[in-house]
Amino acid sequence: MPYYIGDVIKDYKRLVIRTPEAFGKTGIDVKIRTRVEDLDPQKGMVRLSDGSSLPYDILVMATGADAARLDIPGADLDGVFVLRNLTDALRIKSYLSERECRKAVLIGGGFIAMEMCEALRNLGITTTVMIRGCRPVTRWDVEYTDIIIEELRKNKVAFVPETKFLAIERGTTSHLVLKTDKGDIDADVILMGVGTRRDTTLTKAAGIEMGDSGAIKVDFRQRTSVPGIYAVGDCCEVFHRVAGRWVYLPLGDIANKQGRVAGQNIGGYPAEFPGIVGAQSFKVFNLEVGATGLTEEEATRYGFQPISAMIQGLPVGRPMAQGEKLGVKLVADKVTGKLLGGQCIGEKGAIQRIFALSVALWSGLGIDQVGYLDLPYAPPFGGAWDAIHVAAQEITKKM
Amino acid sequence: MPYYIGDVIKDYKRLVIRTPEAFGKTGIDVKIRTRVEDLDPQKGMVRLSDGSSLPYDILVMATGADAARLDIPGADLDGVFVLRNLTDALRIKSYLSERECRKAVLIGGGFIAMEMCEALRNLGITTTVMIRGCRPVTRWDVEYTDIIIEELRKNKVAFVPETKFLAIERGTTSHLVLKTDKGDIDADVILMGVGTRRDTTLTKAAGIEMGDSGAIKVDFRQRTSVPGIYAVGDCCEVFHRVAGRWVYLPLGDIANKQGRVAGQNIGGYPAEFPGIVGAQSFKVFNLEVGATGLTEEEATRYGFQPISAMIQGLPVGRPMAQGEKLGVKLVADKVTGKLLGGQCIGEKGAIQRIFALSVALWSGLGIDQVGYLDLPYAPPFGGAWDAIHVAAQEITKKM
Repeated sequence: MPYYIGDVIKDYKRLVIRTPEAFGKTGIDVKIRTRVEDLDPQKGMVRLSDGSSLPYDILVMATGADAARLDIPGADLDGVFVLRNLTDALRIKSYLSERECRKAVLIGGGFIAMEMCEALRNLGITTTVMIRGCRPVTRWDVEYTDIIIEELRKNKVAFVPETKFLAIERGTTSHLVLKTDKGDIDADVILMGVGTRRDTTLTKAAGIEMGDSGAIKVDFRQRTSVPGIYAVGDCCEVFHRVAGRWVYLPLGDIANKQGRVAGQNIGGYPAEFPGIVGAQSFKVFNLEVGATGLTEEEATRYGFQPISAMIQGLPVGRPMAQGEKLGVKLVADKVTGKLLGGQCIGEKGAIQRIFALSVALWSGLGIDQVGYLDLPYAPPFGGAWDAIHVAAQEITKKM
Repeated sequence: MPYYIGDVIKDYKRLVIRTPEAFGKTGIDVKIRTRVEDLDPQKGMVRLSDGSSLPYDILVMATGADAARLDIPGADLDGVFVLRNLTDALRIKSYLSERECRKAVLIGGGFIAMEMCEALRNLGITTTVMIRGCRPVTRWDVEYTDIIIEELRKNKVAFVPETKFLAIERGTTSHLVLKTDKGDIDADVILMGVGTRRDTTLTKAAGIEMGDSGAIKVDFRQRTSVPGIYAVGDCCEVFHRVAGRWVYLPLGDIANKQGRVAGQNIGGYPAEFPGIVGAQSFKVFNLEVGATGLTEEEATRYGFQPISAMIQGLPVGRPMAQGEKLGVKLVADKVTGKLLGGQCIGEKGAIQRIFALSVALWSGLGIDQVGYLDLPYAPPFGGAWDAIHVAAQEITKKM
C-alpha cells in the first residue's frame, strides 16, 4: 500500500479533518506533523523526522510548491502572510478577525493577489496592490491589464507599480510599516503573492531527474526517472499540448488530474495524462478574466509564427446589449493555421468563451474552423456571430 | 450581381430600414413588396408579382420558413399572433401597447415560447402556456423539463399540458376566448409557437431537389441540385457533424453562416460550410438551458449505441456554492467511445458548459478525453473537477 508523504503533511489541520473519513476506514496510515528527511530509492526507504524509517514499493512525490517570500528584513513579522494553502487562509482569517485591520497591502500582482483584493474590500479594508513590475497578471496583454487596473481603481483598490520593497517594520499608527522606494506605507496586514519556490532537497538526494523548467520531470503516467517513484501536482512538470513540450504550470485542477492518473497507474489501471492547454481564469470584482493556450510572446519563443486579432465584442446579442463589453483576443499560427491561444475579459461571458477556446486548442482546430464553430446561440448568451467567430475571421482575413 | 429575393421581402420594414446603408451604396437593386411568382432555371429568369421578369446568373433561395398556425376556427383573429420575424414582434408590441392586455395564452412549448413567457411576465401580464403534448421543449430530458416547468410555476406562469385546441372566438370579458377540451380560456392575446412550415411552391416549380427532411438539399457550398441556384437558411438542410448526415434545423446562427458561405462561393472565394453539431440554448427566467449534439433517442435512431450519465454538479467551486445547481447530462457511443451529446441546465454556467461540449463534439472527442479536458478552473466559475469532467468520468466507468 503506497504512503502519500510530502510537504502537504505540514498542513496538518487539513489532514486531521480528512483522516477519519478519507483514510481511517481504508486502513491507510497517515503520519501527521512528520517530515520526510531523506529518501533512498535503492533501498526503497524514507527516513522520517521522528527518527523512524518507512519502506515503500511505490512512492508519490506530492510535495507541491511553497509560496515565495520577499527576502527583505521583517518579511516574517506577525501580520505578514503568504497566499498558498488552507493554513495560510485560516491564519489570515483569524488575524483579521482578532485585531482591528483597516489597511492591507498586497505585494504582487498575480491572479491570486487579484482575487484577494475583492475579499479584503468586502471586509471594508483599505487595500493597496504594490508590484515590482509595471503591470499585474502579465500573462494578459496590456490592453486587458489596463481594464483590470481600471477595475481595481473603480473598487477603490490603489495600484502602485514599479516599487522596490526595502523592509517591513512594526508600526505605531498601524500594526506594520512597509518601507519602499516610494515611501513608507502603513499596513495592518501585508499579503505576499510573489510566486512559488520548490524545495528540491529530497529529489536531489534521490537522484530524480528535473526538467528544463526546474520542476520534476515526469512521463505521461506521472512516473519520474526513478523506478517506483511518481510525482504529481505543483512539484512536477506537465505536457502542454499547444506548445508541444513539458512546462511548469502549478494550478490546482492540473494537480487533481495528475493525482488521479498516478493513482490509476499505481492501482493497476494504466492511464495517461493527456496534458493541458494552459487554461486559466480569475475573477476580480465584476470582471471575468481568462486565458488559454499560448501568448504571442510564448508562441514566438516556441517557434510558431503568431498572428493575432483583438476585438471588442458583446457577451449578449446586440438587441439585448446594455453596455457590457467582451474583449476577445485570439492568436493563430501563420504556418499551420492552427489556433494557438486566446484571452477574454469582460463583465460576463468571458469564461464561457475560454471554455470553448480551450477545447478548440485541445483538439488542435484551425482558425478557419474556429470561425464557424457551432455554438449554442441565443441572445442572452451571445450574438448569432459570436465574438469568437468574429475574432477568428479577423485572423483568417489577415492570413 | 445576384439578387437576394425571397419571402423575407414580405418583411419590408426591415428591408426599408437597411436599404439605404446596406444596399443603396452598393448599387444592389432591392425590390420591396414584391413576390417571386415563378422561377425558370432553364431561362435563368424569375417572374415577379408586379408583372415584370428578372434575369439571373446566380440565384439564392433564402425563403426561410413560416410560422405554422393551428388549423382551428378563429386562428387568424385580431390578437392572435405567431412568433417568427421582426414584423410579428412589432405587431405584438403595438397590440400590447394599444389595448389593455391582462391575460396571454401561449400555445406551444418550444424554446421561443419559453422565452416569450419572460417578456410577457415582465409586462405584468397573466400568462398561461398550453401545449398539445405532455412536456415543453422535448429535446431535453424529462428531468430537465421538470425543472423548466417548475421555473415557469415559480414565475407565476400556468402550464397546461395535453390540451386539445378547438377554436378561438371573440370574447366579452377579455378580447378573445380560447376553446379547448379543458374548457374556455380567457385571453387578451394569443401567441402561437407551434413549429414552422415551408412554402415549397417555387422550389417544386424549379425542380430543385429536396432532402429527406423535406427541406432543400444543398452541398457544402450551399449549392442546390440546380446549377446556378444556391439555398441558405431555414429553407434548406445542414450537415450534422455528429449524426454524420444532413438534417433540418432552422436556427438563426446557422442561417447566418450559410449565407456567408454562399456569398463567398458566389463571389469567387470558394468556401465550404463545415456543418453543425446541434448546439442550442435559451433562457427562461433565471434558468439557462442548453443542449448540443444528439439526444439518446436521436443517437439510437442514427445507429449509435448511446450510454449516458446525468449528474447534479455545481457551477462554482464547492466552497463558493450558495445553493446553485447545475444539471449536466452527457451521451457517448459505446462502440467508438465518442461523445455524442450533452444537455445542461441551471441558474448559471449551463451555457458555458454547452460552449465547451459543442467544440468537443465538433472535434469528435472521445468521452475519456472529455473527462480530462483542460478548462479554465477558478472557484467562481467551477470546481477543479468541472461538472463536465464528472459526468464524462461517470460514463467512462460504465463503459
